[in-house]
Amino acid sequence: MKKLTIKDLYKDYKSFENKQVSLEGWIRTVRDSKTFGFIELNDGSYFKNIQIVISDKLDNFKDLVKLTISSSIKVTGTLVITENSKQPFEIQATNIEVFNLSDSDYPLQKKRHTFEYLRTVAHLRPRTNTFNAIFRIRSVAAFAIHEYFQNNGYVYVHTPIITCADCEGSAEMFKLTTMDLEKPLPKNEDGTTDFSNDLFGKEAYITGSGQLHGETFAASFGKIYTFGPTLRSENSNTKTHANEFWMIEPEISFCDLEQLMDIEEDCLKYIVEKVLERCPEEINFCDQFIEKGLKEKLNKLLNSSFVRIDHKDVIDILKKADRKWEFEPDYGEDLAKEHEKYITEYFNGPVFVKNWPKDIKSYYMKLNSDGKTVAAVDLEVPGAGEIMGGSQREEDYDTLVKLMEAKGIKTEPLWWYLDLRRYGSNVHSGFGLGFERLLMYLTGMENIRDVIPYPRTPKNCEF
Amino acid sequence: MKKLTIKDLYKDYKSFENKQVSLEGWIRTVRDSKTFGFIELNDGSYFKNIQIVISDKLDNFKDLVKLTISSSIKVTGTLVITENSKQPFEIQATNIEVFNLSDSDYPLQKKRHTFEYLRTVAHLRPRTNTFNAIFRIRSVAAFAIHEYFQNNGYVYVHTPIITCADCEGSAEMFKLTTMDLEKPLPKNEDGTTDFSNDLFGKEAYITGSGQLHGETFAASFGKIYTFGPTLRSENSNTKTHANEFWMIEPEISFCDLEQLMDIEEDCLKYIVEKVLERCPEEINFCDQFIEKGLKEKLNKLLNSSFVRIDHKDVIDILKKADRKWEFEPDYGEDLAKEHEKYITEYFNGPVFVKNWPKDIKSYYMKLNSDGKTVAAVDLEVPGAGEIMGGSQREEDYDTLVKLMEAKGIKTEPLWWYLDLRRYGSNVHSGFGLGFERLLMYLTGMENIRDVIPYPRTPKNCEF
Repeated sequence: MKKLTIKDLYKDYKSFENKQVSLEGWIRTVRDSKTFGFIELNDGSYFKNIQIVISDKLDNFKDLVKLTISSSIKVTGTLVITENSKQPFEIQATNIEVFNLSDSDYPLQKKRHTFEYLRTVAHLRPRTNTFNAIFRIRSVAAFAIHEYFQNNGYVYVHTPIITCADCEGSAEMFKLTTMDLEKPLPKNEDGTTDFSNDLFGKEAYITGSGQLHGETFAASFGKIYTFGPTLRSENSNTKTHANEFWMIEPEISFCDLEQLMDIEEDCLKYIVEKVLERCPEEINFCDQFIEKGLKEKLNKLLNSSFVRIDHKDVIDILKKADRKWEFEPDYGEDLAKEHEKYITEYFNGPVFVKNWPKDIKSYYMKLNSDGKTVAAVDLEVPGAGEIMGGSQREEDYDTLVKLMEAKGIKTEPLWWYLDLRRYGSNVHSGFGLGFERLLMYLTGMENIRDVIPYPRTPKNCEF
Repeated sequence: MKKLTIKDLYKDYKSFENKQVSLEGWIRTVRDSKTFGFIELNDGSYFKNIQIVISDKLDNFKDLVKLTISSSIKVTGTLVITENSKQPFEIQATNIEVFNLSDSDYPLQKKRHTFEYLRTVAHLRPRTNTFNAIFRIRSVAAFAIHEYFQNNGYVYVHTPIITCADCEGSAEMFKLTTMDLEKPLPKNEDGTTDFSNDLFGKEAYITGSGQLHGETFAASFGKIYTFGPTLRSENSNTKTHANEFWMIEPEISFCDLEQLMDIEEDCLKYIVEKVLERCPEEINFCDQFIEKGLKEKLNKLLNSSFVRIDHKDVIDILKKADRKWEFEPDYGEDLAKEHEKYITEYFNGPVFVKNWPKDIKSYYMKLNSDGKTVAAVDLEVPGAGEIMGGSQREEDYDTLVKLMEAKGIKTEPLWWYLDLRRYGSNVHSGFGLGFERLLMYLTGMENIRDVIPYPRTPKNCEF
């Protein structure tokens, strides 16, 4: 028989009225007077606790009132509807079995802890309301993403994370090795390090993107997406950088920049809609305690039509703005955080900024007919800045080679990527969605360390 | 307006009868006589091609008949039902636009290529029927796994892949570094390598399992699963080993070994059922060309009840068997491939082998009351051997510490894992499902390199 969970009971408590039920879970609080008491129990299935009523008729009543926070127990009792109380029902316990009495030095006592402190007990923090909400939203959002792409005919591709093609420049890539780093590394005659006895027989890295491999599969399946961890070795200690994060990279054949924006908008709205629908308790909690107005912000996004505007027109607006910038807006430059903020406030909603100066964008982006801009697009959302970055890809072989050469990208290791322009090339586009940035937007959390189960940042790799 | 795909047409071609439709895709074959011809078109949305009829009434007919394999085109034409033909309908083209004429050296000509050869063109092989089937099944199976766990109340956890806790022994772990490997590595006074300026300030690895981190989240959410890439640095060149693969690791609180087996069986049947349901064309193809009898095998699994038997009883059966073993069965040893094969044939179906000698299993597995065996379970399936490996976890603090010490595992770096036994410990269990091994079982593919988009194996890290 399927075990009952707290979620099952909240979903349909009326059908359990006056029936005997059993639950296993962890104690959140115990309150007692002389002859009776209340236990708040959580089993992880649902954001809310369930109230257990205990009385001195229970043999072990005296032990029960001494139960510590996070002790694990099994409760058997009768479900009673309590219409005029805070909670719609409670369990009147007839038997409570204690599995494990939590040690009294349990670090999460009933008081507010700072997020900084909670990072030092990352193995326990999902037991707090805040992180229980955050990590359930993380799970629900991840599944919504899979659902969106699968329902729309995309094929999920596991692109490799190990690479030997140093195609992005190794600056941001971790090196991967099986060599003994305690001993001097073997050398070639010319003095360079000899990797021939390393596992892959040459230098290996962890790739920072699955896009290029993704494109090869899009050239077969039409529409694909990746969703996996991404490692970047930036030595950057900010609220929005982590060295390990998850990314979604869809790639679509026979799709231009305008169609790509349609997809991005549709995709983001689907995720927001499903999170609102499936995590109402968690979103309410975040709205109350993490970011006031969160729910309104998300609902507003659902009902807005995203603005589409060229980068140069954004710069025009910024230049005309009656304010002093820390970074002066420039037609040849990226947008600073302050610009992103201004432009989403200016349009009072999400903004696609498109057609960027080619010099500040990647080599694989489609060169526009002006010869100066590329068909790239960043989606800026109110309160979170850039959340998606995409582009039409250059599909012409000769133009792509020229763009690569101009940016100092070696063509030889990317022969397979270039092959796509020789065998059935087509107008195609893709985007990257940083999963943690999305989560920060969905929950209101301001530090990326607080939306990742075990964050990895420079000098920080605990647990 | 949503673009039409070949899948849309196959799903509901009758409603498009005699209507004008447009499709974009790649040419699989062209056949022609003087005044008309046929193009087999595929757009990646569906396993089957669509037949396009071209005639010399088209302005560019003479160019069309010369179109090379994999050229990309846009077809506009009328859908005509062809009831007595091989295909239920065809498109009579009124216009064909050629996007890109594929170079004539396209490596996949219309003949059979060996799987070995196709690995050298891994960027193109999903365009073949075989790999189109394999990688679509991969995507569908991955989503079915997410669906199964999400529908059953599990929380998806992204456990970290970077670790500094050398808890599994670094033998099978890749080292990760940002240090310059061309220069001599900095040294401490005692002669050991100084990692203080490496990104994390100490030695870092890629972890080979998310289980321990997964357990911490199960102790909060009750039921969790991981699904992500796993790197292991084994220098092993076999048909079943890759250095990068994907793994699913569910972890369930308040769950003993018997309940775990219920979940494993239920989960595997769900995946098989969904793949059969959602990939009928692909499974038929694999049944015909990869493994004869595949469909029957999968259907049989759905209708079987998995046997549960102790390791020692398996050894009894093996010892009594009237055959000569390469490896003699032994009560204290693991099962060899030949034993796995025999036992699934003996029971004519999947077999859970449980309660293994503690010396050959991991430290975290629950010590049984006999003091000699642990509550571990391997699922053996006909034709693929071990496909899932799981165990009840040791939940008693003191016993776990003793087991760790006996196996030479340092307890200090795992303080957080041990904490779970101090704060609300409970009977809990989990298993690991190797995604590629599952795919080999689902498709009949015999080499792991042929179920991974870009396989990474010793001395092999192309693309």
